[in-house]
Amino acid sequence: QSNNAPSSYDPHDIKITGYLQTQFQQAQSSGISSFSGGDFAENSDNRFIIRRGRLKIDRVDKYSSIVFQIDATQNGINLMDAFIQLQQPDHNELRLTAGLFNRPFGYSIVYSSGYRDFPERARVFQTIMPRERDIGAMLSYQPLKFLTADLAVVNGSGLYARDYDSKKDIIGSLTFKFDSLANRKLQLGFGASFYKGSVRNDTESFYTSDGSGFIKNTSPLNAGANLKRNYFGGNIQIQYNSRHWGATTLKAEFVSGTQPGVAASPSITGPVASQSFTTQPATDLYLRNFTGYYLLFTQQVAKTKFNALVGYDVYDPNNKVKESQIGVAANTSAGDIKFSTLGYGLTYLVNPRVKLTAYNERVINAPAQLDNYRNDIRDDVFTLRLQYRW
Amino acid sequence: QSNNAPSSYDPHDIKITGYLQTQFQQAQSSGISSFSGGDFAENSDNRFIIRRGRLKIDRVDKYSSIVFQIDATQNGINLMDAFIQLQQPDHNELRLTAGLFNRPFGYSIVYSSGYRDFPERARVFQTIMPRERDIGAMLSYQPLKFLTADLAVVNGSGLYARDYDSKKDIIGSLTFKFDSLANRKLQLGFGASFYKGSVRNDTESFYTSDGSGFIKNTSPLNAGANLKRNYFGGNIQIQYNSRHWGATTLKAEFVSGTQPGVAASPSITGPVASQSFTTQPATDLYLRNFTGYYLLFTQQVAKTKFNALVGYDVYDPNNKVKESQIGVAANTSAGDIKFSTLGYGLTYLVNPRVKLTAYNERVINAPAQLDNYRNDIRDDVFTLRLQYRW
Amino acid sequence: QSNNAPSSYDPHDIKITGYLQTQFQQAQSSGISSFSGGDFAENSDNRFIIRRGRLKIDRVDKYSSIVFQIDATQNGINLMDAFIQLQQPDHNELRLTAGLFNRPFGYSIVYSSGYRDFPERARVFQTIMPRERDIGAMLSYQPLKFLTADLAVVNGSGLYARDYDSKKDIIGSLTFKFDSLANRKLQLGFGASFYKGSVRNDTESFYTSDGSGFIKNTSPLNAGANLKRNYFGGNIQIQYNSRHWGATTLKAEFVSGTQPGVAASPSITGPVASQSFTTQPATDLYLRNFTGYYLLFTQQVAKTKFNALVGYDVYDPNNKVKESQIGVAANTSAGDIKFSTLGYGLTYLVNPRVKLTAYNERVINAPAQLDNYRNDIRDDVFTLRLQYRW
Repeated sequence: QSNNAPSSYDPHDIKITGYLQTQFQQAQSSGISSFSGGDFAENSDNRFIIRRGRLKIDRVDKYSSIVFQIDATQNGINLMDAFIQLQQPDHNELRLTAGLFNRPFGYSIVYSSGYRDFPERARVFQTIMPRERDIGAMLSYQPLKFLTADLAVVNGSGLYARDYDSKKDIIGSLTFKFDSLANRKLQLGFGASFYKGSVRNDTESFYTSDGSGFIKNTSPLNAGANLKRNYFGGNIQIQYNSRHWGATTLKAEFVSGTQPGVAASPSITGPVASQSFTTQPATDLYLRNFTGYYLLFTQQVAKTKFNALVGYDVYDPNNKVKESQIGVAANTSAGDIKFSTLGYGLTYLVNPRVKLTAYNERVINAPAQLDNYRNDIRDDVFTLRLQYRW
Repeated sequence: QSNNAPSSYDPHDIKITGYLQTQFQQAQSSGISSFSGGDFAENSDNRFIIRRGRLKIDRVDKYSSIVFQIDATQNGINLMDAFIQLQQPDHNELRLTAGLFNRPFGYSIVYSSGYRDFPERARVFQTIMPRERDIGAMLSYQPLKFLTADLAVVNGSGLYARDYDSKKDIIGSLTFKFDSLANRKLQLGFGASFYKGSVRNDTESFYTSDGSGFIKNTSPLNAGANLKRNYFGGNIQIQYNSRHWGATTLKAEFVSGTQPGVAASPSITGPVASQSFTTQPATDLYLRNFTGYYLLFTQQVAKTKFNALVGYDVYDPNNKVKESQIGVAANTSAGDIKFSTLGYGLTYLVNPRVKLTAYNERVINAPAQLDNYRNDIRDDVFTLRLQYRW
Repeated sequence: QSNNAPSSYDPHDIKITGYLQTQFQQAQSSGISSFSGGDFAENSDNRFIIRRGRLKIDRVDKYSSIVFQIDATQNGINLMDAFIQLQQPDHNELRLTAGLFNRPFGYSIVYSSGYRDFPERARVFQTIMPRERDIGAMLSYQPLKFLTADLAVVNGSGLYARDYDSKKDIIGSLTFKFDSLANRKLQLGFGASFYKGSVRNDTESFYTSDGSGFIKNTSPLNAGANLKRNYFGGNIQIQYNSRHWGATTLKAEFVSGTQPGVAASPSITGPVASQSFTTQPATDLYLRNFTGYYLLFTQQVAKTKFNALVGYDVYDPNNKVKESQIGVAANTSAGDIKFSTLGYGLTYLVNPRVKLTAYNERVINAPAQLDNYRNDIRDDVFTLRLQYRW
């Protein structure tokens, strides 16, 4: 279920796996910004899309493995994973990964979308680590069966970019996993991560928080300055397998830190304003302290093929400003608005390869002093998804 | 030979098939609009191209199957098919298809280009259903061995698009197939189809026919109105296998209906003006009543590996206006001109996988009262194609 | 090791091979033009990139074969090879190749990047034949075990283009290979090639050399004129396998001719000015007489898994003008500057599939009378590459 691994570490020649997700979606209104498969077209409130079409080719031998994955949808075909792994066969606690891989930060980024119960990753992770991947090198160390440490150096500019600056970013994580506690009924995992990077400012000015709004810092020295992009996070997963009620799973993850972004403007929507950059941003940067988290609850329906899902996630791009002050406090914009999402739904495993998911998301924003944001936007989304995994 | 099926319904693990078509083409003049593999570059009247490079990956089990197909040429790599099929093993007359698949309209749209005798689909089908595919869901019902009914709901915006409006389009077809009549010498197929959809008008005006030209309808209510896109069609295929003369095949298909398009302009060529849209058209729509058909005749040359081909097809984008009135009747443009194509050629099966095709097309337009269209355009095309199927 | 062949000519069903190259690079300064994996971003002097991600699918039978190769990197996914080969099983000295294949010119163009010791092809070949491939047809004739003759007709516009003019280009080569001389210790290869093509001039003027600078030729007849693009080249490869010292290899190749290019300008860098075109150039052409060559020396380090590499290559886009006159002589520009590259490094074969390469390149330009080129540009590049071949 980790994206940073071949389909299996048992030595094998070329193997093709993958999954296809096709879905119908109904939004509450046309043209909304959405984290449930991307924004809707200006005049469209419903659509059929291929959400993910993955083809993974891997090969494993005693010393090395390779993973190659592409994503093919109506939006085009792109490389998703391309990494080489090296290990000593007798010391397989140490592993080097080089190439394009998932950032080893937290739990949900690395967890495969082909296995996740919920349709999408939380808004905060789609914002700070869009498309999950970056290019670089990673050292993984597993001294004990239940403990893994990862340390990676990456470009910081994501999946589709050669780096746009000269500074590299560092990612580290510590993961604990206990697979068979309480007579094999209980599984427990938890971990902590950090991201230490920067974004290059291209202008002579950038903005920092003055408590409620932003103040402008201007100096010739600011052109080319690398502003901090630092996150830290924690996560926990608990699964209990009851003889009567089936499996119950609770997953939670928290992340906080400093994110360089820009201001929302007529050409930059609120959600895009604090999204991590894939190219050099041309305008003044805004440094924001953000917080985000999710809680995901899955309950198998009495040992049937049905699972009930309830999820809740929050992303507050700027935890220094009150929502009611956005638009009033100096230099605040739609890029500072907090969003919460309450989702609930059902999955049905048609067979081990085919899964049907119905999921509804209530997306809530607190009112701000900005046109279009004085009330909760009508941006809820219902998704009906069919997935095949092979 | 159907594109809406895996390489075979016999249960199998991942299987890779495909075909490659590479060709040399000579046009009558440089820079012509062409339906024989796309327009020629402004200063070019001949070219080598990769016409189609298909890689299809599928997997089939008792209950479900998956098909994934990409197309790779000098123009880029794109997803062509990505669908999941579900069926009850004991009631395999019913099948659900979901994802990106060929529109179940008529005969030639769904028929694979890797098996077709003639190099390209008829102009009318390339115009009303460019790239054949759309995203949605389809129910297929085969109550009798010789009868299949398909009903699909699709975006209406084709292969490379998330939908641009909120209305979905409906496609239905009824197909009859008799594979072994007259002591197995005769094969007969026929069918009928409909397409019931719409295109969103983005302006306050659209144009309708007033008998010979177009009149403009203006009202604030027209902005956002969904104009009818309705087709109906019929088709027939006859094949006779003679002991002496080899196989003789005749295929014919007819389609008529209402197509929302735009006017031809310096930036929009005539053929593009009535092509179905993949994004929201920005200018006033023109509602045209169109007619199109093709006749295709294939004769095996006395049980050799040669086949002689003769094809004729017609597309009249606007059957309400006489060609001689185009340019005179109000608001008519190059988008209303009728084109006929007479093609003839030979195929040679080098071996079961390799086919060589030489095919010449005479493309004829009736003179119109428009500059560049007062005579037949010099837009004939000769194609020499080598195909490998694997 | 030839790109114009399947993974093996032994009959086989579909086979997947490929290789992945991921690397870290450090440039001497930010934003440099580079032939070591492409230009660096404006503010970046180091980067992680996926240099090549190749997936090759082929199939071979007695009479025919097919090769399909894609390249997937952070820059996108593209078709690299797509060709059909036909041969008579009893006369396999004759072979027809049709589709997208490597231009049969010289040694390094056709030699696979997955097998090459050095990270990149020489600057001259990247300039005159970018991405190595073109679309067309080729006849290969091997009358003797050690002699192959190739003759190809191609568009002349390269990998990603339908042709932009009506003239085709001709390529021919003669290759000699002796694999087991001197008691199997010595391998020797050599060859000669020509390229005879043209580039269409779109304006009424083009420039030719007047000895030191360029003079402008203006005439209405020049619009649409096809200017000569003619190359000829020679190459030699020697490998000696010593019982004590391991393998020693020396490879050298030379190419000279006439290349139509454009002038360097604020929007066209010097290296791009003489690069072969993939689309119709819009501005006046410059006809330049160029020379280029490389010398590559590889020494296995005493039968270990290490190889020492030393390479030197030169590209002089305009061998009629002295470097010191560039900027002074009429109409000369940065597009006329000569570059030499001295590279040295080490490779380590981790296992038969995995190779680690460390390679440093000193890129030298003679001073010219142009701003930014009065001294040697700081454009050296160090590359650390990990490759997996499968």
